[in-house]
Amino acid sequence: MTTHSMHAPLLLTPGPLVTSARTKNAMLHDWGSWDGDFNALTRRVGERLLAIIDGQSDYVCVPLQGSGTFAVEAAIGSLLPPAGKLLVLSNGAYGKRMAQLTATMGRRVETADFGETAPVDPAVLRQRLEDDPEISHVGVIHCETSTGILNPIEAIARMVAAAGRKLIIDSMSGFGALPLSSKTVPFEAVIGSSNKCLEGVPGMGFVLVRREALEQAAGRSHSLSLDLYEQWRYMQKTGQWRYTPPTHVVAAFDAALAQYEEEGGGPARLARYSNNCATLIAALQAIGLRSFLPAQIQAPIIVTVHAPRHPAWNFGEFYARVKAHGVLLYPGKLTAVDTFRVGCIGAIDAADIARGVDAIARVLAEMGIRE
Amino acid sequence: MTTHSMHAPLLLTPGPLVTSARTKNAMLHDWGSWDGDFNALTRRVGERLLAIIDGQSDYVCVPLQGSGTFAVEAAIGSLLPPAGKLLVLSNGAYGKRMAQLTATMGRRVETADFGETAPVDPAVLRQRLEDDPEISHVGVIHCETSTGILNPIEAIARMVAAAGRKLIIDSMSGFGALPLSSKTVPFEAVIGSSNKCLEGVPGMGFVLVRREALEQAAGRSHSLSLDLYEQWRYMQKTGQWRYTPPTHVVAAFDAALAQYEEEGGGPARLARYSNNCATLIAALQAIGLRSFLPAQIQAPIIVTVHAPRHPAWNFGEFYARVKAHGVLLYPGKLTAVDTFRVGCIGAIDAADIARGVDAIARVLAEMGIRE
Repeated sequence: MTTHSMHAPLLLTPGPLVTSARTKNAMLHDWGSWDGDFNALTRRVGERLLAIIDGQSDYVCVPLQGSGTFAVEAAIGSLLPPAGKLLVLSNGAYGKRMAQLTATMGRRVETADFGETAPVDPAVLRQRLEDDPEISHVGVIHCETSTGILNPIEAIARMVAAAGRKLIIDSMSGFGALPLSSKTVPFEAVIGSSNKCLEGVPGMGFVLVRREALEQAAGRSHSLSLDLYEQWRYMQKTGQWRYTPPTHVVAAFDAALAQYEEEGGGPARLARYSNNCATLIAALQAIGLRSFLPAQIQAPIIVTVHAPRHPAWNFGEFYARVKAHGVLLYPGKLTAVDTFRVGCIGAIDAADIARGVDAIARVLAEMGIRE
Repeated sequence: MTTHSMHAPLLLTPGPLVTSARTKNAMLHDWGSWDGDFNALTRRVGERLLAIIDGQSDYVCVPLQGSGTFAVEAAIGSLLPPAGKLLVLSNGAYGKRMAQLTATMGRRVETADFGETAPVDPAVLRQRLEDDPEISHVGVIHCETSTGILNPIEAIARMVAAAGRKLIIDSMSGFGALPLSSKTVPFEAVIGSSNKCLEGVPGMGFVLVRREALEQAAGRSHSLSLDLYEQWRYMQKTGQWRYTPPTHVVAAFDAALAQYEEEGGGPARLARYSNNCATLIAALQAIGLRSFLPAQIQAPIIVTVHAPRHPAWNFGEFYARVKAHGVLLYPGKLTAVDTFRVGCIGAIDAADIARGVDAIARVLAEMGIRE
């Protein structure tokens, strides 16, 4: 399945990413945000998202306008009680951001820092929870896009539950592809966005949250716009979004979710991305480029690649030349090592990945870095 | 100019509204949010918006993900100093909301309440500013969509400036059509959105803010996601949005702004909407329906209409039947009077308005309310 047009740019990025023509075509209609047809569309999106985590009975879906970070902030602002304390398990930029947004809203937060290149260690988590009984909630990034590390979410969730604390998962970059069932993994809330593995366009996030937890969240938020409880209550009462929704984005998301289900849901999406990722790493290796992470902690979402050690290497020039071949890459985010990144997600398959690596190979030759 | 397809629903609402095919077609492309082409698009949108208020030299444009309310909250959270106090001039739901979001973020706020049916009275404003020297900022809604009232923005702005205070204008529903030049009207910031009179699709707001004021706003925000200063600083440094932008929405907005300029900018837009509004009021009158506001305070954005006094009247049924004719109306928002609303804005002209009123007339006949 190559849904991607040869004429459009090939985005090998962690999102915004390549979306299908069908998803984009769903934006060619103007919806009334007050209208029953649009309310039905919003409701259907929520039901589709809850089904992904087997959460229909115990969880509710609260969509939120804005980028994924807005939804993370809304979730923590509403779910962390004023007397609570959040421990963030951090191994990259998104863990740091979760801690920062919690501190900005004036809540108590601590960070367990695992550096940039290792997954979260559940033994360290256990110790921190034992040492500090005031920690009420734990926050973690499912797949840390800074490098592409997959964190051991099941072990983390079991440990948090065993210690009687609550887990908030930022699964922005992995939701829908990385397995996460509420029937087997205990968590309070998981946050995702329209435009990562679900292959919608950017402009909204969502929080799937245990209904009991949200029912206790009235009056906690530091922000009117980001009040997850009020967003939910209003939608329950009226079927509508509390403030103007990004109607075209929601319609595209609904179309993207239909395609997700038709493809075979999470298992099929994971299989396609895993194949993209394996194809990518092998093809890069064949042209002398090494991926940064060991295979056992590499999520099939985004691959960090060592920059070639060559005097002619220059990421800016490399990026521009690869772009001239119709392929968009992503810069590295590591502080200590020179890297770049290549995404495996979006409406793309192994043939697209091969085309991307082919462009990389040509450019390395153009730049005199490789024969 | 009828840009509106006869087959799509005709939205006579204050937004989301009818957008042109060209605007929607601009969403059929996937942009990389890190890419230079997209950064150029964002920069162009900002320049186009600043030109509308003649603000190129003294103001900066800060776009923000989410609905317009998010941008209002971001503006107040960053521009109101911790020791400041905001006076909100309120005559409807949006004034109330501005006061509510300021109180939620823990800042000092007072409201001058003018009811639901009268414009802001500058004499009352003067008295409030004289009585309370602690008021540092004044907030006002340019056109209050609850009824469609046009507030006397020039008189308000002159009075606030004369008293040495700062004005924050929420011009969500009127920006781009209602005249507002920073050369003649003194204000600190004006807030707008992509999907009202500029006829883009919903999903982002923007704040046009005096550069000097924003430069002093570091560290004030109650929220990481809604920190207007950091959003601006990051964009200045990198050319990129701080968090994932709604790329398709931004591209549609750029296309909508190009059409705005081609049409003749603010004067042409105002003339078309004024013609829509006059056509609407006259056509409604011809079928026995009265508009609620006196002509001198009626903005050409949305018209509040008295519901027919007839035992068969029922808004829900009326709405559904008018919708069956392909036309979407808007409910009333007044507490004391039974009304409904009809929008005059969007990529529509007087012929569309006539079609809308024709549908209303047919439905009133179907319901036995009118012969």
